[in-house]
Amino acid sequence: MDITTILGLILGVGFLGGAFVMEGGHITSLFQITAAMIVFGGTFAALMVSTPMEQLKQIPKILKIAFTHKSRDPLEVIDELVILATIARREGILALEEKIDTYDDEFFKNGVRLVVDGVDPELVRSIMETELSFIEERHNKGAQIFEQMGGFAPTMGIIGTVMGLVHVLSNLEDAAKLGPAIALAFIATLYGVASANLAWLPIANKLKVRSKQEVLIRELMIEGILSIQAGENPNILAQKLKVFLAPTSRTKNEAAEREVGGTNVETA
Amino acid sequence: MDITTILGLILGVGFLGGAFVMEGGHITSLFQITAAMIVFGGTFAALMVSTPMEQLKQIPKILKIAFTHKSRDPLEVIDELVILATIARREGILALEEKIDTYDDEFFKNGVRLVVDGVDPELVRSIMETELSFIEERHNKGAQIFEQMGGFAPTMGIIGTVMGLVHVLSNLEDAAKLGPAIALAFIATLYGVASANLAWLPIANKLKVRSKQEVLIRELMIEGILSIQAGENPNILAQKLKVFLAPTSRTKNEAAEREVGGTNVETA
Amino acid sequence: MDITTILGLILGVGFLGGAFVMEGGHITSLFQITAAMIVFGGTFAALMVSTPMEQLKQIPKILKIAFTHKSRDPLEVIDELVILATIARREGILALEEKIDTYDDEFFKNGVRLVVDGVDPELVRSIMETELSFIEERHNKGAQIFEQMGGFAPTMGIIGTVMGLVHVLSNLEDAAKLGPAIALAFIATLYGVASANLAWLPIANKLKVRSKQEVLIRELMIEGILSIQAGENPNILAQKLKVFLAPTSRTKNEAAEREVGGTNVETA
Amino acid sequence: MDITTILGLILGVGFLGGAFVMEGGHITSLFQITAAMIVFGGTFAALMVSTPMEQLKQIPKILKIAFTHKSRDPLEVIDELVILATIARREGILALEEKIDTYDDEFFKNGVRLVVDGVDPELVRSIMETELSFIEERHNKGAQIFEQMGGFAPTMGIIGTVMGLVHVLSNLEDAAKLGPAIALAFIATLYGVASANLAWLPIANKLKVRSKQEVLIRELMIEGILSIQAGENPNILAQKLKVFLAPTSRTKNEAAEREVGGTNVETA
Amino acid sequence: MDITTILGLILGVGFLGGAFVMEGGHITSLFQITAAMIVFGGTFAALMVSTPMEQLKQIPKILKIAFTHKSRDPLEVIDELVILATIARREGILALEEKIDTYDDEFFKNGVRLVVDGVDPELVRSIMETELSFIEERHNKGAQIFEQMGGFAPTMGIIGTVMGLVHVLSNLEDAAKLGPAIALAFIATLYGVASANLAWLPIANKLKVRSKQEVLIRELMIEGILSIQAGENPNILAQKLKVFLAPTSRTKNEAAEREVGGTNVETA
Repeated sequence: MDITTILGLILGVGFLGGAFVMEGGHITSLFQITAAMIVFGGTFAALMVSTPMEQLKQIPKILKIAFTHKSRDPLEVIDELVILATIARREGILALEEKIDTYDDEFFKNGVRLVVDGVDPELVRSIMETELSFIEERHNKGAQIFEQMGGFAPTMGIIGTVMGLVHVLSNLEDAAKLGPAIALAFIATLYGVASANLAWLPIANKLKVRSKQEVLIRELMIEGILSIQAGENPNILAQKLKVFLAPTSRTKNEAAEREVGGTNVETA
Repeated sequence: MDITTILGLILGVGFLGGAFVMEGGHITSLFQITAAMIVFGGTFAALMVSTPMEQLKQIPKILKIAFTHKSRDPLEVIDELVILATIARREGILALEEKIDTYDDEFFKNGVRLVVDGVDPELVRSIMETELSFIEERHNKGAQIFEQMGGFAPTMGIIGTVMGLVHVLSNLEDAAKLGPAIALAFIATLYGVASANLAWLPIANKLKVRSKQEVLIRELMIEGILSIQAGENPNILAQKLKVFLAPTSRTKNEAAEREVGGTNVETA
Repeated sequence: MDITTILGLILGVGFLGGAFVMEGGHITSLFQITAAMIVFGGTFAALMVSTPMEQLKQIPKILKIAFTHKSRDPLEVIDELVILATIARREGILALEEKIDTYDDEFFKNGVRLVVDGVDPELVRSIMETELSFIEERHNKGAQIFEQMGGFAPTMGIIGTVMGLVHVLSNLEDAAKLGPAIALAFIATLYGVASANLAWLPIANKLKVRSKQEVLIRELMIEGILSIQAGENPNILAQKLKVFLAPTSRTKNEAAEREVGGTNVETA
Repeated sequence: MDITTILGLILGVGFLGGAFVMEGGHITSLFQITAAMIVFGGTFAALMVSTPMEQLKQIPKILKIAFTHKSRDPLEVIDELVILATIARREGILALEEKIDTYDDEFFKNGVRLVVDGVDPELVRSIMETELSFIEERHNKGAQIFEQMGGFAPTMGIIGTVMGLVHVLSNLEDAAKLGPAIALAFIATLYGVASANLAWLPIANKLKVRSKQEVLIRELMIEGILSIQAGENPNILAQKLKVFLAPTSRTKNEAAEREVGGTNVETA
Repeated sequence: MDITTILGLILGVGFLGGAFVMEGGHITSLFQITAAMIVFGGTFAALMVSTPMEQLKQIPKILKIAFTHKSRDPLEVIDELVILATIARREGILALEEKIDTYDDEFFKNGVRLVVDGVDPELVRSIMETELSFIEERHNKGAQIFEQMGGFAPTMGIIGTVMGLVHVLSNLEDAAKLGPAIALAFIATLYGVASANLAWLPIANKLKVRSKQEVLIRELMIEGILSIQAGENPNILAQKLKVFLAPTSRTKNEAAEREVGGTNVETA
């Protein structure tokens, strides 16, 4: 569960709506069905022109990742790899076969299976890295869908506002209604800019961060599996893999603050 | 048939026009011939200055791709390659010659012909990759034409609106007409922003996605043809090529959701 | 003669001016000397600060390329190379010497001369590729001058409009003149946005397209000259070089539609 | 202590506030709680959606770097390396062991330890460069957080202003209050643009500059440690490492103006 | 002396100021101390937050380059290299030692010294290229300072204008002063956009062009010094180095139009 995505959205709507009410506005004056049609309908229509159906169908899955995904702790992955390395050294590579079905991760299972099958190390690396590069590309496509929405939404907002102004200015008979009518026209800009900057663009970024964490864990797996195949010492393996992590993430008792390639910018 | 392109355009125009009518506007007040001249004429003129005639002539062909292209199912391509590999192992490379004319794809035919002609594998790869890189560049040029239109259109809209305002502000005698005249001026902005964001930019993106799918299929072909030349086992060939696909696209019974390097971001 | 550049400019000015007149504006109200001074003078001044004198002096030459350049037909270049290859195989490399002076292209002449002089193939490639990379860089500089103008012009337009508004708003005595005065101020924005989007940016793009075509032809020359030096078969040479062209450009009877690495996006 | 960061912020607020007061404005009219909620609250909410919790928690640490970090003098690092090289040549590599605990820098300690442990030079380089690339990536993430804030803040300002205008225009009963109400609405734009351009974006840039300096010092360490392992002459080592520095930074008596890869653009 | 930088600035201010006066404005109405404080003070403050003190101190030196730098004629550098090559072939490498002190350029002196000292060619290239890459990075930092100023200045202008509008709209008692007060507010936008587009951004570009010329000359030096070390023939050396120059720059009698990798886009 990635609490920040949903919490950020709630906070953002709360700050904006709260400030509007504090200034004395009626929250209902921020709701307008035609502006929503133009901005959200228009954004979706533009996305439809730009993106094949197969990818549009993935949107719910992708959203689920942004809201609930929690990457695996890389230390656990390293521990698993160390256990496998120990078994391999003690009982031989073939002894890993019965462990394969205990894992969920298809990528990891495939890697271990290749090693058990005695595939050449060069080829194992090449197959796993090809697969990883396609995983990365798929992740990027998911993030790009939301980046595109973040680009279309504000322009749809402008279109809605311009259409509102066209309508207002064409019918100036009742000057008293001019103000409220222009106010209505601006709601579209509001929807466009707010949806892009509170939702679409931040979600695209969250997806990219998650993808990087996933990719890092898979890089750990590739290095680890190849080391196991080469019969390396389990302790050295653990040392080698921990270089991939931020210094503060290298020990288990700080689990709460642990991170994968996190942002701590301390001297070392 | 790529239904999303045409459907997205219809939906987009529908949402925008529908919202305008729901607010009480007359749909006819959105049509204005001078704004169309400035925005669509100006965009085309700018495109003409920026792009040689040979490429402008390709626009109808390129548009057809955005609206109707459906990429080949990569699993079918893999199946064809497996069949060829089986023939090659059973009857020898030369037996592939009679299959060549049964294919439509020039790129694939050329590749198989090179193998049948006994060209050196290194050279086969080099020729096919050079050809693929030029195919990619041609695709990019097609997408760039629409990206350029997406860049020119909103500025032409601004030009149209500024020219409208210049006209209006120079002739203020009749204040009552000021509102409708300014409304008319804004139609140009509307045309520019809407054409760029509902049509040109999304079409450019659709073309890029289609190009990536085409290129992936051709990469499959190159790998497959070289493996056939090397006399690899057809089963191993199938395994190797499926790494190029998203996990959900690797089996045939999920054909409806199949995709090439699609967006499913699941764990493996 | 590249008819599209001049035709596009005429069409662009025609569409914009025509629409203005159709709306009932006087075409003379679009001409304003002070706006022209600010936009075109300011753009040129900014260009002068950003670009050394040697490069500014090249502007007329560069413009001539955008308006008149027609790249050589790559098929003719291939034909020439095939003729040279035939001579070289029949009469030896040295027989090429007397052909050198029949060519106009300095790059091509230098390449053939290096081969005749018996320079090592590695060095021939290295010298020709270095020269090509400097040609490319020179072309880029030419395009960048117009890209910079396309960046400066709209901001100069904004400066002109702001200065106009400052003048107007400082002297509000005669309210009746307010409208026409603001109209005048907007002319600067019009000049800036229109010159950037109808001329400077499209011309920069045309120069880049032309450069790519030139570079492709020179790449053909490098490959061809090295193949001649290696004594390759003229027929194989022709086949090898045609991979550089779009499929529709590979035969001579379609000369009118022929293109270098053109935009046809057909399946192969 | 990096005095420029805090000084720049004070100066910036001073110039802006001072100018406002000089024009006769009351400084209190620049404070508005709802605008602050929208801009700062909204920016933080967007950041929360876009960034995982682990990274948000690093913000105080990262800010501390922007305000207080002073990179180590690279000449001191070179001196330390020369001392180590001298010890290593005189007493052997193992003699370095007792020096390890005298250093603070984890990265440096790890490097020396690897050499003392007799790890293969290739592997030392690979481990140290992998670690450095992850340090760089962590630094980049820190800078990106502030770059994102610099992107969100102005759009939140626009949202605040549009919401203010919506409120004002919906309630035009009291025309006299129109001006002050619009003024209030603009405060949000002011907060958004000013916070982005005086704080978030410059801080992001400062973090990047600091990161480059850190990385350069670590590159010095890698080169130095590997040279020590190779038993190179301490004097040659000093010469070799000083190439990494700007010419004006290579001698100690100019310590005040010394810089790491600084901006002096003199001829050599 | 690079006359274009100062001339361009004078011309730019002349065109803008001249046009304003021609429209009947008083030139003094363009001067406003508070707008200058906000735009220039704010830009400087933002630069201070973003850039360490060591680099800020380099600004005068960098500006001097933009205004006065004239790169050395690459043909002179080639001549010097040919002379050195001739001496080296006639009297041996060691004979170059007495020439070292006759040069001003530290980079060139260091290179010749390395050769005289008999350092391994691989190492000479590596040291010189490392030094060149740091020179390039220092140049880039100089240009980036002005690019940043070009990014901050217009936003400071917007801040100034918004603050002016806030002040004006909060105090609408005297409607007659509204126009002039808004005019004053726009001066800040004028300062921001004009300083960025007439000064900061063009100067950044000029610095980049100068840097490229410097780097090209140093690449000539590296190639030349290594050829001398290899004992190459002085005539061949001259031929080889001239490939780095534009064709029109290869002969001395056109010295006035000579350029380094200039923009002449002629066919060869």
